[in-house]
Amino acid sequence: MKRYLVLWCAAVGLLLSACRGTEGYRIEDGILVTEVPEREAGQQSVLGLRCEPMDTVRVGFIGLGMRGPGAVERFTHLDGVSIRALCDLYPERVDSAQAILTRRGLPAAASYSGDEGWKALCEREDLDLVYICTPWQLHVPMAVYAMEQGKHVAVEVPAATSLEECWQLVNTAEKSRRHCMMLENCVYDFFELTTLNMAQQGLFGELLHAEGSYIHNLEPFWDYYQGNWRLSFDQQHRGDVYATHGLGPACQLLDIHRGDRMNYLVSMDTPSVNGLAIAREKMGADRFANGDHTLTLIKTERGRTILLEHNVYTPRPYSRMYQVTGTKGFANKYPIEGYAFEPEQLTASEVPDHENLSAHSFVPEEVRKALMERYKHPITKELEAKAREVGGHGGMDFIMDYRLIYCLRNGLPLDQDVYDAAEWSCIGALTALSLEHNSMPVAIPDFTRGDWNRIQGYRHALLEK
Amino acid sequence: MKRYLVLWCAAVGLLLSACRGTEGYRIEDGILVTEVPEREAGQQSVLGLRCEPMDTVRVGFIGLGMRGPGAVERFTHLDGVSIRALCDLYPERVDSAQAILTRRGLPAAASYSGDEGWKALCEREDLDLVYICTPWQLHVPMAVYAMEQGKHVAVEVPAATSLEECWQLVNTAEKSRRHCMMLENCVYDFFELTTLNMAQQGLFGELLHAEGSYIHNLEPFWDYYQGNWRLSFDQQHRGDVYATHGLGPACQLLDIHRGDRMNYLVSMDTPSVNGLAIAREKMGADRFANGDHTLTLIKTERGRTILLEHNVYTPRPYSRMYQVTGTKGFANKYPIEGYAFEPEQLTASEVPDHENLSAHSFVPEEVRKALMERYKHPITKELEAKAREVGGHGGMDFIMDYRLIYCLRNGLPLDQDVYDAAEWSCIGALTALSLEHNSMPVAIPDFTRGDWNRIQGYRHALLEK
Repeated sequence: MKRYLVLWCAAVGLLLSACRGTEGYRIEDGILVTEVPEREAGQQSVLGLRCEPMDTVRVGFIGLGMRGPGAVERFTHLDGVSIRALCDLYPERVDSAQAILTRRGLPAAASYSGDEGWKALCEREDLDLVYICTPWQLHVPMAVYAMEQGKHVAVEVPAATSLEECWQLVNTAEKSRRHCMMLENCVYDFFELTTLNMAQQGLFGELLHAEGSYIHNLEPFWDYYQGNWRLSFDQQHRGDVYATHGLGPACQLLDIHRGDRMNYLVSMDTPSVNGLAIAREKMGADRFANGDHTLTLIKTERGRTILLEHNVYTPRPYSRMYQVTGTKGFANKYPIEGYAFEPEQLTASEVPDHENLSAHSFVPEEVRKALMERYKHPITKELEAKAREVGGHGGMDFIMDYRLIYCLRNGLPLDQDVYDAAEWSCIGALTALSLEHNSMPVAIPDFTRGDWNRIQGYRHALLEK
Repeated sequence: MKRYLVLWCAAVGLLLSACRGTEGYRIEDGILVTEVPEREAGQQSVLGLRCEPMDTVRVGFIGLGMRGPGAVERFTHLDGVSIRALCDLYPERVDSAQAILTRRGLPAAASYSGDEGWKALCEREDLDLVYICTPWQLHVPMAVYAMEQGKHVAVEVPAATSLEECWQLVNTAEKSRRHCMMLENCVYDFFELTTLNMAQQGLFGELLHAEGSYIHNLEPFWDYYQGNWRLSFDQQHRGDVYATHGLGPACQLLDIHRGDRMNYLVSMDTPSVNGLAIAREKMGADRFANGDHTLTLIKTERGRTILLEHNVYTPRPYSRMYQVTGTKGFANKYPIEGYAFEPEQLTASEVPDHENLSAHSFVPEEVRKALMERYKHPITKELEAKAREVGGHGGMDFIMDYRLIYCLRNGLPLDQDVYDAAEWSCIGALTALSLEHNSMPVAIPDFTRGDWNRIQGYRHALLEK
């Protein structure tokens, strides 16, 4: 008991004091509302942004520790790409990445390292795209600088770690009119893409509710993060600091800023027990801001709901949850993949035994397989075999990179724009605000500043044939 | 879009006006707090209430439509029970229940029917227990009247449908010093009891978070509720109106009012699409208060969390969710039963292959089975075969009735007291308040009025041998 009380008081005290230092907010109808900055002169919406097509995308990579080398490897399998520059804090990591190019029979790229190497890379004249795989808190400074140098940007998740950073990304993209795509790979997983396609074909009826999470016990992985940066971040930040893997697929399903928008959220967390123990062991910490388990409910303009959970501390099977509830159907990915439908939904789907279906249980295994084959997403159809061969989280990383390059080469809007990056990344800061105020509702800013309803329905851009 | 807006406005308007009529509340630290009435003179806590042991429990049943006949049947299999009276609005239902007694070779009970039959039943001198299986809104008037007549009460879920009713139950039990047990059967299901036992043995470490739900597509069942009473109730009530099946097991795990208490909740719901369509078809309704999917987060005094979901409208596999997250282990019931642990948790458990376990996945099937056998709950050990034979939701109903009679006969505190009934039932009214205020946090009253920390740890009472 006492232990909890002490923890609780410490956490509340710490965070209330942290809160005083954050950006201004007001309370309207019981909802905590943060400031939406005015668009500056010369800045305009990049919703649906198309840039000049390019035959070859010249790319530079920053950050070659954990996610970077895999990205370099995958890019060697893509057509229409030229890897021009590689950068890391440590030169030996750049050398290892160069070895990938050599092994794949490609010319060496320019090498950059040290504290300022990334700036020099961004300043190169011969790059179209800067691909950023550094620790979270370096994402925005690097992405902003790259855009200011006229480069498109792809940046790992979460793209930003504070509200102020989210606005910086949006404002810089709107000023520079460059693409800024967050590298949210989970929206490209096979089950997610197939289910999104089913949803867009109306199989689930009207969508009402979606769930997503990041449940991943990082106990064996903490040491792989250079200088404990991830544990340090969690130690200092309460809230759902890693929401994008769960939220991204939910937002694409619910057409967020393509006909609906997230209005407000409430969040609740448990005490930190395991997080604190790990931080005590690895960093000598005596407090830990991030709760072991964090829950968030989000309400959209059209009244729909999203549930998010975050837990990287306790022994649980890996889960991104991924669930969608519609008026006529249901999909669930973890711990088992399954679909349920009103039987009449399947009459046109040419699946076996549809007379024998019940809306009260998952469809039988052979029906699920037939459905997944039939509703395979158009963007994966030709790509599936190659994606599985090249790999990267079972192929989804390759599909993500493929789509990024495909859209750039064809002058199409990217699958994820800078508003997605801001919306999916702001959850960390906003949940912290809610948690610091006894789970008070907190408004989610409209990063499009009024354009959320201009496009109707989320779609992947494809060349018309 | 417009459809959602209209629905939304209608629901908000309706409920805001409904709200004006409810009991008073104030706002403290952003939390909506309802009034806790003072204990009246001559009224005292019934926490841990023990009554005189009795050799035979003389019982009368009210409500013989849906759940009642099964209860009568189960009681014929219990020792130390005498079924003295049967009551329903309709005499033909009483006759059917009498036929159960005849078939089981038991003497006929007194028959009651009509609008006032239940009062006459409660007034009998020769009853110890009144067992109530009527529609929700009749529970409290009947339970209160029965206690006032000196009878113990067992009442179906939810025990009460408003905050005022919750307080009525508590106050009447405290004045009459009679037992009032809500018939929450799901706390007696095998997986739940076994997991509760594991938790009490420390297998999950410190418990941090629990989940529960009522996901049950009632589409084929609406017509079975006399005069559409359930659909009518949902049509008029927003919120998680049927929370007890998910919440009960969570509260027993978290020792609610036995060392911890629920402090506040926030709730969010989707529009009503399917609910409205069904009510339009069956009742000609043009509005429907209850959202198709309702989510609730609850925070306890010790900082732990509970997630609840309610959805009786859309095609989904049945789920009560039932999940518990601890610092050293995890349990999950739907859609598949599974456990995950830090491997060292199992070293003393004599399970196969514990060297081969990973904290990142469910334990293998044979380990799960061995664990469930080893940690079978003491109250089910002798009873399991008989429970499965007598049946009632796979045996849990029989265990529930058995425990009720066992505790009454031995003068022990019941497994569920009147504070459980109030705590688990108040969720409907409190979630409605939160929903009416943009998901504002709402305080959960301490129905024990200060005694929540007097007993340490939830335990089933057992005769010392």
